[in-house]
Amino acid sequence: MRVLPTRGHPLVYASWERAKNRPTLLVYGHYDVLPGEPRAQWKTPPFTPTVQGPDIYGRGTADDKGQLFCHVKALESYLRTGGLPINVKCLFEGEEEIGSTNLLPFVERNRQALRADAAVISDTRMLGPGQPAISYAQRGGLRAEIEVRGPRQELHSGTFGGAVLDPIHALCAIVASLHDDQGRIAIPGFYQDVRDWSDRERDYMARTGPTDAKILNDAGVDRPWGESGYTLYERTTIRPSLGINGIVGGHYGPGVKGVIPRRAVAKLSFRLVPDQDPRKVARLLRGHIARSTPAAVESSVKTHSPVPPALVDRNHPAVRAAGFAFKKAFGAYPVFLRSGGSIPVVHAFQRQLGIPAVLMGFGLPDDRIHAPNEKFHLPNLFRGIETSIWYIATFEKALGGRSQAHSHSREAWSS
Amino acid sequence: MRVLPTRGHPLVYASWERAKNRPTLLVYGHYDVLPGEPRAQWKTPPFTPTVQGPDIYGRGTADDKGQLFCHVKALESYLRTGGLPINVKCLFEGEEEIGSTNLLPFVERNRQALRADAAVISDTRMLGPGQPAISYAQRGGLRAEIEVRGPRQELHSGTFGGAVLDPIHALCAIVASLHDDQGRIAIPGFYQDVRDWSDRERDYMARTGPTDAKILNDAGVDRPWGESGYTLYERTTIRPSLGINGIVGGHYGPGVKGVIPRRAVAKLSFRLVPDQDPRKVARLLRGHIARSTPAAVESSVKTHSPVPPALVDRNHPAVRAAGFAFKKAFGAYPVFLRSGGSIPVVHAFQRQLGIPAVLMGFGLPDDRIHAPNEKFHLPNLFRGIETSIWYIATFEKALGGRSQAHSHSREAWSS
Repeated sequence: MRVLPTRGHPLVYASWERAKNRPTLLVYGHYDVLPGEPRAQWKTPPFTPTVQGPDIYGRGTADDKGQLFCHVKALESYLRTGGLPINVKCLFEGEEEIGSTNLLPFVERNRQALRADAAVISDTRMLGPGQPAISYAQRGGLRAEIEVRGPRQELHSGTFGGAVLDPIHALCAIVASLHDDQGRIAIPGFYQDVRDWSDRERDYMARTGPTDAKILNDAGVDRPWGESGYTLYERTTIRPSLGINGIVGGHYGPGVKGVIPRRAVAKLSFRLVPDQDPRKVARLLRGHIARSTPAAVESSVKTHSPVPPALVDRNHPAVRAAGFAFKKAFGAYPVFLRSGGSIPVVHAFQRQLGIPAVLMGFGLPDDRIHAPNEKFHLPNLFRGIETSIWYIATFEKALGGRSQAHSHSREAWSS
Repeated sequence: MRVLPTRGHPLVYASWERAKNRPTLLVYGHYDVLPGEPRAQWKTPPFTPTVQGPDIYGRGTADDKGQLFCHVKALESYLRTGGLPINVKCLFEGEEEIGSTNLLPFVERNRQALRADAAVISDTRMLGPGQPAISYAQRGGLRAEIEVRGPRQELHSGTFGGAVLDPIHALCAIVASLHDDQGRIAIPGFYQDVRDWSDRERDYMARTGPTDAKILNDAGVDRPWGESGYTLYERTTIRPSLGINGIVGGHYGPGVKGVIPRRAVAKLSFRLVPDQDPRKVARLLRGHIARSTPAAVESSVKTHSPVPPALVDRNHPAVRAAGFAFKKAFGAYPVFLRSGGSIPVVHAFQRQLGIPAVLMGFGLPDDRIHAPNEKFHLPNLFRGIETSIWYIATFEKALGGRSQAHSHSREAWSS
């Protein structure tokens, strides 16, 4: 095992490459997690794993330490009982939640060393308990921060209120201008590259995917929202979205302060779909914000963490092999689901390494990833290990004849 | 001197009532100040008074400890040299910046004990150095807090983005809906009771008040904003305004967090003009927010600190006496200015005690009250003491014949 430094959090790499002329599987996971906040809403300490009933609670239990661990334990079971039937390269990173900024160029620079026949990633979810799922589509993403600057110093809101535009008011108007009344994103040109899907694909989604009622129930909300003409499953997978993840400005603590503040900031995240290009979306956003900013204040936009959307071929042998492994471990074949989130490396594996990422999820919809009281369902941990064991065996059979990858890479990492 | 407890910060009261059959002056001031934030923008510690050049820096130096102190020192000079020619009651409070919540009912309950012929308040500003001013109008006010609640728990913005309305987005749209594109407040009925002023009054304001250029310079902003058809002086005095003093929601610290948060909050303050009633404005606001809240989220509105607008008769003898005192101390007669801010007790003195409040300001437009690096100009401190000394002497002559107030109040405070 090697710890490979990056400009940010290091990569962890380990490989076993003794299965000569056998296929190679690249196992990816991430050890970074979101903050354990708001702390007050956690019922157990976010960074002390706590078993309660059939679940283990803690930040990262489902996203992604617990799911990653399924593969680690499966590999351990092979290595303790004579070795693996295939070659395995494990690549774990620490920056998935912030856009894999350092991993993506690392993959590009180390295409040879990372050669494999397919990648497996467990960082997604099942349809429900006992209903395994393979994610075959991931939305892309783009993060942005909008800052609006008003007066050079805080001003008394009595003395100047009515003659000086306050930056919070301006920021709210700018943020409000990003959507129209129908829940569509109102940035001109934003939908230009959004792919229309065939009735056949949408029928497939309707048959296999979660219902509106199920999604509302998973979210714990009573009323849906969004673009009309699409199911909630479609709105969260084949349609793009724009969320405001945070906003701050002026005096927001207890008490009151009658001021016109100097600045206000909002943090946004886009979720993008085929065939949108995050860099083009960044340009469109900048143009829209510039046009929407009143002359009485100044604004600036920072964008980062561009992630293109990704699609995986459901008929690839490495994907079909995963179906068989799920059936063995869970007693049921998986459904193929689209996912609303992004795993930035999926697109990079496809583009840079030319391999599919098999998104073999062990999470449940109510695992509360990114939220307080994140948990992982322990039966899924154990079935996940079994699934991974079966997958490795099946992978050998499914891809044995077509391995392109095995090269006894010498791990001459380029950084 | 007595410290009178309230439900909040106590009142400080002192009186000298030995000038039998002579008029009584009520001196008001406040010892509370705004927070010393944002701390990083202060060049000197906000709560360590620091003299630099002709100014003393620190929170409260101008608003209102320094101005209040002018009267304290003037009274001291009389008491050390034989006594006062009039009766004086001093009433200092500690909750002016949060709407005088406890003082207003105290005044109502203690009308007899507080009887006086006029009140003097130094908590306003001059037109500029060497240009004294008496404020004869104060805007009223109303504070509000709008909370928007979304999902019961934080949600992953990838999984649910597009199907669940995020509360920050909804709050921004609600806040944006409070103004139209022309800088007018868009709450239906809001302008119904706003008084139109005669050309004569507006001409007087144009002659005596600050120019647009001066107000922009005082504010340190390049571009004005607000309701067309009115000068900046009018926009900040005879026209109402609505500022967003603070906003917060979701993840606003460093880094990113792809979440749909549970709630977002904005703090607003209205500045109101004759003949608007803060309670009616509160009702109109609640109705507007309720109508503007999308069904996919919930909202609530809290309002507090209602302050009616106040006007003082420029021809009252107690006001004219102040003009003479200014001329003696500063070498110039004051102009009569309208003020954009609120001193909640002004209206209460008029309504409950039937006396005018003489708003004798010693602050300068660039004193940065409510902002970092608040200062008070030391020559104004010394001239302010002189002005108060002259005022007490002039007050005796101007109101000697018409005193209604002297009653040897026994200070039986009703609390």
